[in-house]
Amino acid sequence: MAQLQLLGIAGSLRKASYNRALIRAIGEELPDGATLSLYDGLAALPVFDPDSKDNPDVVIAFQEAIRAADGLVIATPEYNYSISGLLKNALDWATRPLKTSPMRGKPVGIASASTGISGGMRAQYHLRQILVFTDSPAMLQPEVIIPRAQDRFDADGRLTDDSTRDLLRRYAGSLTAWVGRFHG
Amino acid sequence: MAQLQLLGIAGSLRKASYNRALIRAIGEELPDGATLSLYDGLAALPVFDPDSKDNPDVVIAFQEAIRAADGLVIATPEYNYSISGLLKNALDWATRPLKTSPMRGKPVGIASASTGISGGMRAQYHLRQILVFTDSPAMLQPEVIIPRAQDRFDADGRLTDDSTRDLLRRYAGSLTAWVGRFHG
Amino acid sequence: MAQLQLLGIAGSLRKASYNRALIRAIGEELPDGATLSLYDGLAALPVFDPDSKDNPDVVIAFQEAIRAADGLVIATPEYNYSISGLLKNALDWATRPLKTSPMRGKPVGIASASTGISGGMRAQYHLRQILVFTDSPAMLQPEVIIPRAQDRFDADGRLTDDSTRDLLRRYAGSLTAWVGRFHG
Amino acid sequence: MAQLQLLGIAGSLRKASYNRALIRAIGEELPDGATLSLYDGLAALPVFDPDSKDNPDVVIAFQEAIRAADGLVIATPEYNYSISGLLKNALDWATRPLKTSPMRGKPVGIASASTGISGGMRAQYHLRQILVFTDSPAMLQPEVIIPRAQDRFDADGRLTDDSTRDLLRRYAGSLTAWVGRFHG
Repeated sequence: MAQLQLLGIAGSLRKASYNRALIRAIGEELPDGATLSLYDGLAALPVFDPDSKDNPDVVIAFQEAIRAADGLVIATPEYNYSISGLLKNALDWATRPLKTSPMRGKPVGIASASTGISGGMRAQYHLRQILVFTDSPAMLQPEVIIPRAQDRFDADGRLTDDSTRDLLRRYAGSLTAWVGRFHG
Repeated sequence: MAQLQLLGIAGSLRKASYNRALIRAIGEELPDGATLSLYDGLAALPVFDPDSKDNPDVVIAFQEAIRAADGLVIATPEYNYSISGLLKNALDWATRPLKTSPMRGKPVGIASASTGISGGMRAQYHLRQILVFTDSPAMLQPEVIIPRAQDRFDADGRLTDDSTRDLLRRYAGSLTAWVGRFHG
Repeated sequence: MAQLQLLGIAGSLRKASYNRALIRAIGEELPDGATLSLYDGLAALPVFDPDSKDNPDVVIAFQEAIRAADGLVIATPEYNYSISGLLKNALDWATRPLKTSPMRGKPVGIASASTGISGGMRAQYHLRQILVFTDSPAMLQPEVIIPRAQDRFDADGRLTDDSTRDLLRRYAGSLTAWVGRFHG
Repeated sequence: MAQLQLLGIAGSLRKASYNRALIRAIGEELPDGATLSLYDGLAALPVFDPDSKDNPDVVIAFQEAIRAADGLVIATPEYNYSISGLLKNALDWATRPLKTSPMRGKPVGIASASTGISGGMRAQYHLRQILVFTDSPAMLQPEVIIPRAQDRFDADGRLTDDSTRDLLRRYAGSLTAWVGRFHG
């Protein structure tokens, strides 16, 4: 099997973001032949302006990073029962113009962590609806929904919970197969 | 009845935004004793950062404008089958910290317009879920969902369609009653 | 304050249904002047048929029970990430014909319990969207979302968890105020 | 390519159901090598009862029909802003027990028609969330959302609108490729 390159996108600016930690932990569980790198430029994107003539350079760079990846891992916080404005703004730029959107046909793994009981699931179903429009097939199962993340990651963002690690391993294996299904 | 002051929030930066036009048109149909002013500072809000110590001044001003209003009219575009990143970012700031959020208990009217066939409805149901968390009671019926807005507003954003105006008049009347129900 | 009569509707046929137990437990926490009775006829409703000329007698009885109540408490299981077919079928009959639907303007409290981690929340947001159409204002906060119900109710369906009882007391108080807001 | 067999499921009992007509019209646009048959037994399913020991024979027959198909086409009406109770009840049976559910991994095409302006889209996104749990990958684009169906089908349920037929042809081609992607 060819090497699969995944791009991780975390929807929070928080320095100690559990969702960024989650992407790292998923990267550690990928099977051989798959790699994951974290995109770190969401905060640099301006507010989406439909009137702007051309996409700004930072947007072009973001789109190129998506285009170069075989698949995405999007880890979203749940703010106010939906995805963050930061992540939504990034997706609004990513699909502009729709005709040449790098999201089209791009396979996606969704994940979320929260300190509360929902584990971010309310944000995930909003994200899934968004990905219907962007035409980005999102893997279904297993879902990674991590409630009470503070009990599963240490202060440095390292995963310390074995059952969560097992879930991430199954997720990473399924995701690699899912992404592979949409290539070649 | 005491004077009711409504604050309009449009979720698009577009200069010729149909959602901003929609808020103006709703303002024209309000019964006596109710007024609507448009909040024009969404683009000035920084990207929401949960790590920031204090809310920036522009956020404080936004929260004060919400607090001073008896109710809100939120008109949302539909980008990628959800509300805009701009609007979501504003709502993320509006509720920080949750304990003193001016959204709590604030009655809301939702509306949307789009050039396509959905009229923005897919964004509206996401917004409704968000308002469950913010504890902001949103009026149910009549819903203002305006498909093919380009056929109903002229180039200056003036409403030209009588049946839409009839809907907005019923909406404005219901909304005034809805907001009144949550005051006094 | 006049006596408030609430009608409880549980969306599961299961004999030991946690959602039926939840309705009973909510009934025990109502403030003075409010009562809750459980509607027990959902299983008797036929499959909704839009072609049927007149509503069957069991449908008429269901609609009359809704009409006679000041408000509803709907407790829904989460089957396949949505409300049960049983509950949806009941709501489809309840609103026929729409013009004289007893759901119109009827205030509602939503609640759910599940044995898993979601506590039924995925079903709740579907139910909330349904209630937008039926024009039935659903209380926002506090939400009653009970995960791992088997740890909180005993084998006879009696609530044994004090923190859940505290939540139900706050919920019952808020709901009584919410229902009262839409009457008189 | 091997022959692909699709099973159509229409969520309405209505004799002149536009959603049943829609399934037939999709069947007419399938590329060579793919066939679609309509499952006609939803009304015979009892109300889902989690306490029932064994699945009734009609449920077993329904599950076998799903299992035998390479993929499904589910056409859903929109009742009260969600899928019908009839369809939800069928899906609740289809996945029992989950461990041997024939829905698992089964590729699905979603479609809907309505006489109003939504074209059933509000039901479609609920159905998509349900299919996340059932682990049934639903095709993303093109979506078949048919508003004002009475203008596009004649009294005998025959499609009379050419632009809708073009959409169904693209949909049928995409769906065949989508289903093929999950087989072999």
